[in-house]
Amino acid sequence: MDKMVVKGDIAFTSSKDKLDIYEDAYLIVEDGQVVKISKNLEESYKDYPVEDYTSKLIIPGFIDIHLHAPQYPNMGLGLDKELIPWLETYTFPEEEKYGDLEYSRRVFTRLINDLWRFGTTRSVVFASIHKESTKLLMDLFVESGLGAYVGKVNMDRNTKKELTEDTNQSILDTEEIIKEYNDKSDLVKPIITPRFVPTCTEGLLEALGNLAIKYKVPVQSHLNENTSEVIWVKELFPNSKNYASVYDDYNLFGQTKTIMAHCIYNTDEEIDLMAQNGVYAAHCPYSNYNLSSGIMPLRKFLDKGVPVGLASDISGGNSLSMMRIIAGAIQASKMKWLGTEKELAPLSFSEAFYLATKGGGSFFGKVGSFEEGYDFDALIIDDSPLTGIKDLTIEERLQKFIYIGDDRNIIERYVKGRKVRKPF
Amino acid sequence: MDKMVVKGDIAFTSSKDKLDIYEDAYLIVEDGQVVKISKNLEESYKDYPVEDYTSKLIIPGFIDIHLHAPQYPNMGLGLDKELIPWLETYTFPEEEKYGDLEYSRRVFTRLINDLWRFGTTRSVVFASIHKESTKLLMDLFVESGLGAYVGKVNMDRNTKKELTEDTNQSILDTEEIIKEYNDKSDLVKPIITPRFVPTCTEGLLEALGNLAIKYKVPVQSHLNENTSEVIWVKELFPNSKNYASVYDDYNLFGQTKTIMAHCIYNTDEEIDLMAQNGVYAAHCPYSNYNLSSGIMPLRKFLDKGVPVGLASDISGGNSLSMMRIIAGAIQASKMKWLGTEKELAPLSFSEAFYLATKGGGSFFGKVGSFEEGYDFDALIIDDSPLTGIKDLTIEERLQKFIYIGDDRNIIERYVKGRKVRKPF
Repeated sequence: MDKMVVKGDIAFTSSKDKLDIYEDAYLIVEDGQVVKISKNLEESYKDYPVEDYTSKLIIPGFIDIHLHAPQYPNMGLGLDKELIPWLETYTFPEEEKYGDLEYSRRVFTRLINDLWRFGTTRSVVFASIHKESTKLLMDLFVESGLGAYVGKVNMDRNTKKELTEDTNQSILDTEEIIKEYNDKSDLVKPIITPRFVPTCTEGLLEALGNLAIKYKVPVQSHLNENTSEVIWVKELFPNSKNYASVYDDYNLFGQTKTIMAHCIYNTDEEIDLMAQNGVYAAHCPYSNYNLSSGIMPLRKFLDKGVPVGLASDISGGNSLSMMRIIAGAIQASKMKWLGTEKELAPLSFSEAFYLATKGGGSFFGKVGSFEEGYDFDALIIDDSPLTGIKDLTIEERLQKFIYIGDDRNIIERYVKGRKVRKPF
Repeated sequence: MDKMVVKGDIAFTSSKDKLDIYEDAYLIVEDGQVVKISKNLEESYKDYPVEDYTSKLIIPGFIDIHLHAPQYPNMGLGLDKELIPWLETYTFPEEEKYGDLEYSRRVFTRLINDLWRFGTTRSVVFASIHKESTKLLMDLFVESGLGAYVGKVNMDRNTKKELTEDTNQSILDTEEIIKEYNDKSDLVKPIITPRFVPTCTEGLLEALGNLAIKYKVPVQSHLNENTSEVIWVKELFPNSKNYASVYDDYNLFGQTKTIMAHCIYNTDEEIDLMAQNGVYAAHCPYSNYNLSSGIMPLRKFLDKGVPVGLASDISGGNSLSMMRIIAGAIQASKMKWLGTEKELAPLSFSEAFYLATKGGGSFFGKVGSFEEGYDFDALIIDDSPLTGIKDLTIEERLQKFIYIGDDRNIIERYVKGRKVRKPF
């Protein structure tokens, strides 16, 4: 049995309303999972090897539940457009390149290094339509030691010719990846990824829903990001009740576990359906700013019990740092609060931290917390460069790290109890 | 005569609508000022020493026109409150400490190091009510080689006892600093700093306006940051036309050059008065998010010809990085665009870059651009860690640096032609 003791100032959120804090405490790990946390090292663990991070913060690894790997080279570029023209001008031309495996490798190794650097221990990722490139991305994640769901994108209409798949080939490629990768790694798994309703024919949506159920594979897509997109979907599916129900009609909305990115313009009915079906919302505040999409009414989703995680959505988003995205989510929620005549309460710090750890982590199972039985996915934070002027509580030190720290403060990363080194 | 040639990829904004770009060009500096930029090195400059930054970006230093030095220890803390309770709970207790010069030195040296680190070559700064601490801050700026306006804060009512000044002493202390520092340094100057209307009696405002005019000293304060503050001012000055006119009535609104921070809830009349009097607006997007203040309708100010600069406003703001504040200003303007039924156009990249350089820089004179006669305040940017996947234009490289770069990409800083080393 693999076992260890990790010592330091421990902070996490078992529930969203407050931080669980253990000052100068011992966290026991067996076979990659948290056994317990205690103030004193009990007799029975005294022979466990100790990783001593006294005076450092120990927090769960960050979870990014929506990002586009092939858009990495565009990060920070062209953020002066709205969604649809931005896709046409910047995104689609970049995504064409991933037939080239050498280019794919160059981009993906840098992306994975950056995820590692910013302490994102698990992520849920869109690849492109390209089968071999998607497999390469999965292989590179396995090699890295980080966790990920990776989806080959499906689209067979309403996009550039170069990115339009033959429907049958799209389905065959998707099934091939599922069969090859579904049981290959416990950290890296396939996910079914219709890009979004407008780029998928009914036949494709139906086949993908069938694959999801047949192989018990999760699903990810986009929902209600932009007002013109919402109108477009209504034109394409005039008989559907709403945007969400198009996915639902094809078994792509919680029939297996599902993430929908953005959810800015959901109707109350659509939010209810997400709650009922346990569909995750991926909140991407920076992407939603950059593409002038709007601000998601996050509080409504929390109140109705929809599971929510945070996400970078690069390259609509311009940062892989979940620290910045936590701060951005709080800031966005404050603007929403003002914009709704103070009806939708802003996020507290602990709520936002929860969303970036246990909130998104729950998509992976027992991930994102240090409760008993959770995978020990953790970051060791040396916040000393940020402090040293006056005494701070552990919660205040964590706030400082999130609001003003960066990757330099993250000195170690663990996934399932294993220390993960810089991958590439 | 001091002279040099600086070589590299040069980008700046002489006007806000587009970037001026000179690829692999020579910039001639004499006595700290830009003489010209040319593609080839002319014969007459061939004996000038060359600082060769080939393939690096050369851009103007950043200008931060509103920040609170004594709030530095609170940066990233307590950002879950609105303005008034945040002042009472976090800010005022911290600002009490600056009677202690040892503490002041500890904080200010770290602050100035951080300004240097993030490439902020000039800033406009609130100190606290404490005379000696304010002088220390000015001395430390002089020692650093960075430029700054520094103001001793004045407040003689409506705050904690410990921060309430005797009106006469407040005036005497302010005058003492002005006399001692007005001609001491060409880079570091005093600025008259009534905290904001609610904490100043009429007698104090009147005396400060008189000092401004007598010594030709500029002025800074706060204006229309928060709806409850606006109501409070109306109660205190029921006979004044509006918040801005209180300052104007006391010669604190453009009678000498003036900066007003925030300006979120200005009436059209108040914006017109700013334009007429040439009063600067300091736009502080992150602070305005964090304190749930709102989003300034920046486009209106630009359209009416109000001079505008960007600002960190730490510790209401949580970052000293003007790169992040440029991105934040663009993002905020996009939310404003959506919130005004697409009436107030969002900022373009060049506009936001202009505001953070020449926009705020003009408060200092010929600062923030590389046109002839401008002070050579510059940053050398090694953006190679951000690029290398595909070919980018210089504008795209600059976008990447602003949106995804950080202080590590800034490899040299110049102020008035002098290379500035890490100060402390």
